[in-house]
Amino acid sequence: MLTVAVVGASGYTGLELVRILHGHPEVSVTCVTSERSAGKRIDDLFPTLRGCCDLVLENLEPVRVSGKADFIFTALPHKAAMEVVPTFLTLGKKVVDLSADYRLGDAEVYGAWYEQHLNPHLLQEAVYGLPELRRDRISGRALVANPGCYPTSIVLGLAPLLKEGLIDLKSIIADSASGVTGAGRAAKVDSLYCEVNEGYKAYGVGGVHRHTPEIEQELSLLAGEQVTITFTPHLVPMDRGILSTIYASPLKQTTTAELAELYSGFYSREPFVRVLPQGSLPSTAFVRGSNFCDISPLVDKRTGRIIVVSAIDNLMKGASGQAVQNMNIVCGFPETMGLDRPALFP
Amino acid sequence: MLTVAVVGASGYTGLELVRILHGHPEVSVTCVTSERSAGKRIDDLFPTLRGCCDLVLENLEPVRVSGKADFIFTALPHKAAMEVVPTFLTLGKKVVDLSADYRLGDAEVYGAWYEQHLNPHLLQEAVYGLPELRRDRISGRALVANPGCYPTSIVLGLAPLLKEGLIDLKSIIADSASGVTGAGRAAKVDSLYCEVNEGYKAYGVGGVHRHTPEIEQELSLLAGEQVTITFTPHLVPMDRGILSTIYASPLKQTTTAELAELYSGFYSREPFVRVLPQGSLPSTAFVRGSNFCDISPLVDKRTGRIIVVSAIDNLMKGASGQAVQNMNIVCGFPETMGLDRPALFP
Amino acid sequence: MLTVAVVGASGYTGLELVRILHGHPEVSVTCVTSERSAGKRIDDLFPTLRGCCDLVLENLEPVRVSGKADFIFTALPHKAAMEVVPTFLTLGKKVVDLSADYRLGDAEVYGAWYEQHLNPHLLQEAVYGLPELRRDRISGRALVANPGCYPTSIVLGLAPLLKEGLIDLKSIIADSASGVTGAGRAAKVDSLYCEVNEGYKAYGVGGVHRHTPEIEQELSLLAGEQVTITFTPHLVPMDRGILSTIYASPLKQTTTAELAELYSGFYSREPFVRVLPQGSLPSTAFVRGSNFCDISPLVDKRTGRIIVVSAIDNLMKGASGQAVQNMNIVCGFPETMGLDRPALFP
Amino acid sequence: MLTVAVVGASGYTGLELVRILHGHPEVSVTCVTSERSAGKRIDDLFPTLRGCCDLVLENLEPVRVSGKADFIFTALPHKAAMEVVPTFLTLGKKVVDLSADYRLGDAEVYGAWYEQHLNPHLLQEAVYGLPELRRDRISGRALVANPGCYPTSIVLGLAPLLKEGLIDLKSIIADSASGVTGAGRAAKVDSLYCEVNEGYKAYGVGGVHRHTPEIEQELSLLAGEQVTITFTPHLVPMDRGILSTIYASPLKQTTTAELAELYSGFYSREPFVRVLPQGSLPSTAFVRGSNFCDISPLVDKRTGRIIVVSAIDNLMKGASGQAVQNMNIVCGFPETMGLDRPALFP
Repeated sequence: MLTVAVVGASGYTGLELVRILHGHPEVSVTCVTSERSAGKRIDDLFPTLRGCCDLVLENLEPVRVSGKADFIFTALPHKAAMEVVPTFLTLGKKVVDLSADYRLGDAEVYGAWYEQHLNPHLLQEAVYGLPELRRDRISGRALVANPGCYPTSIVLGLAPLLKEGLIDLKSIIADSASGVTGAGRAAKVDSLYCEVNEGYKAYGVGGVHRHTPEIEQELSLLAGEQVTITFTPHLVPMDRGILSTIYASPLKQTTTAELAELYSGFYSREPFVRVLPQGSLPSTAFVRGSNFCDISPLVDKRTGRIIVVSAIDNLMKGASGQAVQNMNIVCGFPETMGLDRPALFP
Repeated sequence: MLTVAVVGASGYTGLELVRILHGHPEVSVTCVTSERSAGKRIDDLFPTLRGCCDLVLENLEPVRVSGKADFIFTALPHKAAMEVVPTFLTLGKKVVDLSADYRLGDAEVYGAWYEQHLNPHLLQEAVYGLPELRRDRISGRALVANPGCYPTSIVLGLAPLLKEGLIDLKSIIADSASGVTGAGRAAKVDSLYCEVNEGYKAYGVGGVHRHTPEIEQELSLLAGEQVTITFTPHLVPMDRGILSTIYASPLKQTTTAELAELYSGFYSREPFVRVLPQGSLPSTAFVRGSNFCDISPLVDKRTGRIIVVSAIDNLMKGASGQAVQNMNIVCGFPETMGLDRPALFP
Repeated sequence: MLTVAVVGASGYTGLELVRILHGHPEVSVTCVTSERSAGKRIDDLFPTLRGCCDLVLENLEPVRVSGKADFIFTALPHKAAMEVVPTFLTLGKKVVDLSADYRLGDAEVYGAWYEQHLNPHLLQEAVYGLPELRRDRISGRALVANPGCYPTSIVLGLAPLLKEGLIDLKSIIADSASGVTGAGRAAKVDSLYCEVNEGYKAYGVGGVHRHTPEIEQELSLLAGEQVTITFTPHLVPMDRGILSTIYASPLKQTTTAELAELYSGFYSREPFVRVLPQGSLPSTAFVRGSNFCDISPLVDKRTGRIIVVSAIDNLMKGASGQAVQNMNIVCGFPETMGLDRPALFP
Repeated sequence: MLTVAVVGASGYTGLELVRILHGHPEVSVTCVTSERSAGKRIDDLFPTLRGCCDLVLENLEPVRVSGKADFIFTALPHKAAMEVVPTFLTLGKKVVDLSADYRLGDAEVYGAWYEQHLNPHLLQEAVYGLPELRRDRISGRALVANPGCYPTSIVLGLAPLLKEGLIDLKSIIADSASGVTGAGRAAKVDSLYCEVNEGYKAYGVGGVHRHTPEIEQELSLLAGEQVTITFTPHLVPMDRGILSTIYASPLKQTTTAELAELYSGFYSREPFVRVLPQGSLPSTAFVRGSNFCDISPLVDKRTGRIIVVSAIDNLMKGASGQAVQNMNIVCGFPETMGLDRPALFP
């Protein structure tokens, strides 16, 4: 059994990791940490875990945590992650980091959107953990930067088009919407039930959301040249889910049928990407609690524009599910182990 | 007191009309109709109305209805409206029709998107009732075609840009999302609580939603030439509200400040359009139950693209509220009468 | 025009007062206070108010506030209210206090459930503002203690039975459920969207909720002897509404028809209490945004037990709506002024 | 591998069975039926199942279904079940029936609350499948009547008290609330999103809900004498979950600590019953998607009354999860197989 620590286990992605790993046959969670709830049993904090996990939350001391586990998930805010990850690596641990700290390959870009990077040399050692695009490079890697939720939905949605060079790179608009778990578990007025419920809004409009450079980095790698996009996130009154509606102009006229064939081929061997039959469209409800990404590409006949709709569960394929998928790849377990359950619906 | 009939009072827009008119000092609702609930008291059907309205729902017989009221709101499905409106007009009644039947000026376009029109000659007599664009032509008119919900949010969002000729007309994308009242009150599996709740999805993707020609008709009139757009509706798990996030490429570079000035000027005398201060963004929660349309225009500095976000309550400014506003204009009442309440929040 | 101050206007009951009073023809809101948001425009804090109220929130200095308004609503937490109300009274102002500070007639009881009372002499000057039970004593009064939300729903539900001495006083159980606005607008993890959504729970079980003594005080006054009850509150994932399902054993066998007659008679002249027709049951959805209290009394034939179901909007009849009703009575305005709108549904 | 048929797979409990069984290592679902969707792939009907189950829904012909599977779940409306179960039994199949048809031991009682029973002789052959009370009698049984959702939550909540003879049998009141999946997947106006959302209501008040005789049958068996209760169901705007708040008068004074000990002992070996630590209370959110029943017993010190709060997921422990638990017992699989996952939260 692989011993695993979940660092930052009092947030939603940390809880989700513990939930998934409870059903993983090759893993034993041996350590959970939380600054704000240290000393408390995790099943007192999250009563869903009663009868499933009775670990006591600990303070985050990297050396002690490393003594308890061989594989470490860091589910921390950005900056907090890069303060401890180097110690884990030095002590020979494998790490999947769910923060933004190792996603951007360029320390300057990180500095411009977040703050000065504390260990920029690690950016080259880390691999951006989107298995569908670089499974081989993840295998055996010591540090995996787990992708953000919006980027996962958008990059998977656009990858076939960019790989094939089919669209005008200046034309990309990604209009995305997220459930409220995306805002985390911090006590803020903006995240109160009555502030969020029965309302739909855009936020971070105009290219200011921090996922923008991450999305553009990956799209640029796929396109082979610099891509700049318009990305607009929205907030939906629901717990989980991200749906991205992505617009792009084709370089030459195409059809929905051609796109369906392209996407089906591109993702034919992917266990977690479902290209929907023509005429079907994704809903976040159909991936809730699962690690699937559902995608429908089509053409607006009247304008010729390509529209791709993709849906994931932001806590699963958008965070903890993908992190476990990455762990499976790093460790040589079957990639779907612990993740092969359909969504909970309703 | 003006006597008013609400034809089709067992749906959500019909109920909303009765609710609004209960607080209108110059109006008395004297007749309500419903095919499926005829013979039932309306406050048995909608217990919210107990103590406010105890009319009995009647079958829709245009002559009898005309004998009871001088002003008629038709809140019927398309086709059902054009079967009765001519009779109301012949009998000298004023009509605000909330269906799609008189919104499109061209009977052929109507035929292509709906079905053959039964009284195409009335299309020229009807006025498309968006007060902010043609208040003068609504005044005194016998037949007002009340705009659709999506079109109201999109046309108000784009009008200043089109009037000033500032954008590339081929670049317009409207990404909109609606609450579930937009699907009406018919018993369908797709509208069940458990099918809709905790899910977000796109529908009618690719230029097939019937509001498309209506939107394009109005945008074309504003632009002075034919406009074709990409319009994608989404469904949000909430009762009320439409938010449109609209993208367009400017013909020459502009700034958020310039747009703010343009919009504030354009709508400076409008009682129901609120151009938000820079830095603020609309939410459907802030217009719920009110007749306001909140708008924020801005520029994505990284791509130069213009983004306009607009929000309305689909049952109010998107349907019944705007219908009452039109009635006020037609009849010479103060335009905000019965409509001057802020939103219900939370 | 009566000048009115809303003290504590950054919470939900404060906002609701401003919303209601905007539609009150005899009132002008001239002052709004908030400690946490002083200096901010209230319509920046609550964008629903744009175009309706542009006052700047002030710090709470009682003398300055008294200089701006003749009637004062205190929508403060308990304790904070009794720190300022005496000054308002000394300066000759009329006060409706929405906190718990003047609801309990006995300072010792207040001390046992809250803390030591700062001005116990005022407890006798205050009137408990449930108009249906003591309208005459409210009229002209300087200090009205506005009832709590749960007590309003339970006391109105039981009043006819207690007045008539029909039930075993030891048998009363009130099982109530509230929407989330009842928890206020403070930033707490427990009130986050994702903590509350899609869950239903009991809280304060076993006679520990602070509304218990208030409920018992009023029931005892009605019964003419001490009443002790079991009261269990629950939390429902919705914004507004309280529904109480109340159980009691009759002293002698009765029927639903007899209860219907009793209740209809008891409340026959009440503008805001709707005794539903037999066979109908209340829903919080049917009173949302309105000042109505809907009540259905009936008998469980199999056990002989009486069951009364009552529903209110906790922010309206359970707080701000009732406060305005009390203001109307104190000032001699028509009791329904500003409050005569049906619920917003859906 | 055990071959399994899910009869009635187009409803929510049918879908839930398919979802659970997908993760069950000893089972293969080989047949799914649906009258309204026969001929359609089940993953077209429920896109959550894409990549997990691609069976085509068939008409319900018992002989053909029996040819495809050795174990049969009937997830049908009442009456429809008793029309086919005898055939399954005759053909030697094991059946867990999720309808009400075999839950009541007395055909006359069934006749009074439902309709005339078609095969009353089977009532004695069926076992009421609440494993915590009669695990031994379920083992190997050909026909298991899977308990209703409300009864499961109430009977598990009261069993220790009744077994020990601690309460006044005339004093029991069960106040329960359910999520909307409890209303099924039929297209009814009452179950529409906008009719249910943002509202909380009681229904079936006064001893008329069909689960009443089932609850009383089980309570009576536990008590050793006839028990009559007051049971009030409510509807909560959420997908899943039932919470019951149960009131009873003790025969002699007791304490929360004594009850905690009683319940912990009674359920000490039960894998799916979690007696919560003192001070904790159940929420439906903490059992969502899991097979757990969470229970908190306590005493209202002021009245001496016992209050028990219990929570389940109505589709899991209240239906399909318990059905799989029963299958495991019937077939000799480990009882928790396929069911050992914690809840999905948020």
